[in-house]
Amino acid sequence: MLAPARARLLPPWAKTYGTAALRHDLIAGLVVVVMLVPQSLAYALMAGLPAQAGLYASMLPILAYAVFGSSRTLAVGPVAVVSLMTASALAPLAAAGSAEYGTLALMLAGLSGVILLMLGVLRLGVVANLLSHPVIAGFATGSAVIIIIGQIKSLAGMPGSGHSALQLAASLASHLTEINRAALLLGGTALVLLILARRHASSLLQRFGCSQTVADIGSKLAPVLVVIAATLVTQALALDSRYGVAVVGEIPGGLPALALPLPSLDILRALLLPAAAIALVGFVESVSVAQSLAMKRQERIDANRELLGLGAANLAAAVAGGLPVTGGLSRTVVNHAAGAQSPLAGVIAAAAMLLVVTTLSGAFTQLPICVLAATIIVPVSSLIDLAGLRRTWRYGRADGLAFVLTAGGVLGAGVETGIALGILLSLLSILWRASRPHIAIIGRVPGTEQFRNVNRVAVATLPRLLAMRVDENLFFGNVPAVEAELQRALLVQPATRDVLLVMSSVSSIDMTALDRLIELNQTLAARGIRLHFADIKGPVLDRLRHTELLEALSGQVFRFTHEAFNALDDTAPEDAERPLRVATPSPA
Amino acid sequence: MLAPARARLLPPWAKTYGTAALRHDLIAGLVVVVMLVPQSLAYALMAGLPAQAGLYASMLPILAYAVFGSSRTLAVGPVAVVSLMTASALAPLAAAGSAEYGTLALMLAGLSGVILLMLGVLRLGVVANLLSHPVIAGFATGSAVIIIIGQIKSLAGMPGSGHSALQLAASLASHLTEINRAALLLGGTALVLLILARRHASSLLQRFGCSQTVADIGSKLAPVLVVIAATLVTQALALDSRYGVAVVGEIPGGLPALALPLPSLDILRALLLPAAAIALVGFVESVSVAQSLAMKRQERIDANRELLGLGAANLAAAVAGGLPVTGGLSRTVVNHAAGAQSPLAGVIAAAAMLLVVTTLSGAFTQLPICVLAATIIVPVSSLIDLAGLRRTWRYGRADGLAFVLTAGGVLGAGVETGIALGILLSLLSILWRASRPHIAIIGRVPGTEQFRNVNRVAVATLPRLLAMRVDENLFFGNVPAVEAELQRALLVQPATRDVLLVMSSVSSIDMTALDRLIELNQTLAARGIRLHFADIKGPVLDRLRHTELLEALSGQVFRFTHEAFNALDDTAPEDAERPLRVATPSPA
Repeated sequence: MLAPARARLLPPWAKTYGTAALRHDLIAGLVVVVMLVPQSLAYALMAGLPAQAGLYASMLPILAYAVFGSSRTLAVGPVAVVSLMTASALAPLAAAGSAEYGTLALMLAGLSGVILLMLGVLRLGVVANLLSHPVIAGFATGSAVIIIIGQIKSLAGMPGSGHSALQLAASLASHLTEINRAALLLGGTALVLLILARRHASSLLQRFGCSQTVADIGSKLAPVLVVIAATLVTQALALDSRYGVAVVGEIPGGLPALALPLPSLDILRALLLPAAAIALVGFVESVSVAQSLAMKRQERIDANRELLGLGAANLAAAVAGGLPVTGGLSRTVVNHAAGAQSPLAGVIAAAAMLLVVTTLSGAFTQLPICVLAATIIVPVSSLIDLAGLRRTWRYGRADGLAFVLTAGGVLGAGVETGIALGILLSLLSILWRASRPHIAIIGRVPGTEQFRNVNRVAVATLPRLLAMRVDENLFFGNVPAVEAELQRALLVQPATRDVLLVMSSVSSIDMTALDRLIELNQTLAARGIRLHFADIKGPVLDRLRHTELLEALSGQVFRFTHEAFNALDDTAPEDAERPLRVATPSPA
Repeated sequence: MLAPARARLLPPWAKTYGTAALRHDLIAGLVVVVMLVPQSLAYALMAGLPAQAGLYASMLPILAYAVFGSSRTLAVGPVAVVSLMTASALAPLAAAGSAEYGTLALMLAGLSGVILLMLGVLRLGVVANLLSHPVIAGFATGSAVIIIIGQIKSLAGMPGSGHSALQLAASLASHLTEINRAALLLGGTALVLLILARRHASSLLQRFGCSQTVADIGSKLAPVLVVIAATLVTQALALDSRYGVAVVGEIPGGLPALALPLPSLDILRALLLPAAAIALVGFVESVSVAQSLAMKRQERIDANRELLGLGAANLAAAVAGGLPVTGGLSRTVVNHAAGAQSPLAGVIAAAAMLLVVTTLSGAFTQLPICVLAATIIVPVSSLIDLAGLRRTWRYGRADGLAFVLTAGGVLGAGVETGIALGILLSLLSILWRASRPHIAIIGRVPGTEQFRNVNRVAVATLPRLLAMRVDENLFFGNVPAVEAELQRALLVQPATRDVLLVMSSVSSIDMTALDRLIELNQTLAARGIRLHFADIKGPVLDRLRHTELLEALSGQVFRFTHEAFNALDDTAPEDAERPLRVATPSPA
């Protein structure tokens, strides 16, 4: 047991942390780092950066996330889609591989870190809800196709360039004669081995007596074995010097000096939108991975703390000479499966990575790039979600269209246009939903004090009373629809002399809705129609009490709908000449 | 009576149109044109264009709107805020008054016309709901301050420039010695007269026996009298040549050649965002004016037709040598008050304007610009809505903040940044609302089949059942909040063995929500908790029936909540060992 004061300072997992948990974290951290080494090299190269940038992005950022993030098992570092977005953002600004390009990548990471931190400070974790699943899946599918086409280039050791999938494919086709056969043979063999490992390694290992968890983790480490074998083959046969197979080459040993390069105003302007897109995509990807694991472990993810964690990680990537990072799916799943109990697993991974960078950097010199390409292609191909598209399309056309348009935007016009299109589609659909509130014209269920939709239930209505129930909070996005519906109902029922708004589902009314209700009261009064309210909730009534709406209400505020129906029943003849009340409010 | 075939072709107002209506339209059209002449000159100058551009923007666009728009009385033409936005968009691209500047203004009008038409064709009239009243009022307030500071420059005949209010004010202060005293005297006198007319002319006219309507319209025509008097004074005293008072000067008689200048790709890119901002602001302003009048006249406004009408009007403005236009408040109100019955009033105004342009253009030569400035300052000052700000702030802090931030953005960083900030605030608040659905944990009202929120009503719950009712359609924007709430409730009630989602208020479930419910079912099952549904609406159940959700549901689908409560009541001991059903769905 810990002393209370210490307990308060520590995160929840620390209160029960012991040697058993430490052993789990140690194993998980080491397993993750073994996966991380080839992945971080590959993703850095994909982003157009020297391979070591990936290694640098896998130390300090992990520590930063461990301190500020809220997930216990999220594995932060370079990931495929974010590396693709980095390459796409920087390609127009500098030559890939140049020192300037590297500095721009740091600024991009720093800027997206600042954006994430700002969103976190403003507690805008809600932006994670900005993108629907079909938009995310469409974006991932389109991005994966671009990544794979780009990696085919590296796999076959040929030149080629272009932003959109079409440009890339056309460029590859025009360079078909320049394929390096040795690279293609080596890379193709690696690809086949990796595909076989992905399909069969786990069941094979289980047949040899491994438990399912160990077998699953073991199969995830296949890329490392392939990379080691390929490096040895390349070195033994001198594929590099004799056959021109591209290799990673010299990696500076030791660590880079920490520094935070600050962009000029012009560069800031050029990087702002890509940085925002990377921040958003990275956050959405990361938070959905973290959320689904937390749900399994009965923990909670705080989206605002995730913003802070990922923001700090990206700032750390900028300081440490890396590239934009986020929480990646595959390594997080392995971290979780390998038994990680706390962010200490990440700290251990970072420490192991430090050891690799300072002692093993010479080992990557003869690592062939075509094999790294194979290690990217295999996992990324699982992002192409055609089954998901079929399923989505069958379930709903709007969702299917969002998938297709986003993927099409990515493929035809590049990742940034694609994600912008996806965000636009998502926003429009939110706006569309908000502007179509559920509204019912209601009547009394005979013999009761219950009221129901006239279109669903046989109910009694009054000839000169129009009773309308809005099943949502009133705000600027939906109050025009309420007016339009009322207008439509009044045209259908021109003898209406009283309009009753039943407010049982309304918990808030914003200023815009208030203004328009005030205006509605006036225009209805000018047409000789009184406006009444019923079932206003207490807090709503408190706020309305001193506003023009109730002070100038032409009708009354009733406590309950049935009271309104009783009071406004003018089928009795003496009521026919009841004068129009204009300025006397009577809040219940 | 019209023959049915003819009646189908004509708009609704035409079916009962007669000579009385024509007389009303004639009067209204002429009254509007008398207001329109000085306003259109002034707004063109404010936009940095030659005065005649305003006249040209007041003919063809009115006709185009009359054909395509849906309001009978909306008066389309140059308006203050749109002219300010035009000046702000073009200032960085060309020198005000240059031929290039004029061409850019046409391209801007054409582009915003195309944007409006596209939105109309896509039936996206819902974008009018994008801006809340506080954002609109904040934008108008900030814009009015900038306009007034800018017009003080013209009123005092001094130089000065700048985009934001601060820059403008600083620039004016540094040129204080260059005030033209004759201009200031003349403009100041006009300003005082116009303020007096605005305050007292209507009641004065009523005292002389005019009806209230006539008096109201008469007072609106004061600017015309002031302008005529000032022109005569300027001519008589040769204020132009002797004292250097700036005048409108020669206006080419006759009409410009119709042409549609097409922008290059670079110019298109520079104009796209300003054009979109002008389209949106113009549309929102116009549609709210049209809507409030239509409500008074028991007519309906179709937002999608408004998009087409305003889009056509702006394209027409581009073709006819004008500037971006929209429906203006003051002229529309006068048009309505003067008795306009149909879009013919607009056609008549356009014809009268044609007469003015072809025969009277010489009359504006000696019109002093300082007096036009006075005619802008007086109406625009009413846009500064400090009372509205006070009222909004008192009603709600979020709305008040939106007002202040938008106005502050406009004043500090210019109209475009201001409106972008306003849109961002509005979108975030929509997202914020969407992500906070109303969710209730419910229990049974003892002795009934009714269920209510446990926090509001004394109800009976079951110890191992968590029944949750979501009062909104489930979609990607709110389903994370539903999960978070469920997660929270499960932490509070750890003995839960059954979760029941009551779907009585859910009319649609999008793909994202479906995916997450499927995942929820799995993660709950992994924790030994079954997921059940009750009260699913028919159409929703039809769509869910063949999905993984119901096929793999760990629990059951109940028709009614009370059936679920009866079936899941495990307080009876024999239920304690009831096995967990995993793969057998039972849709009701």
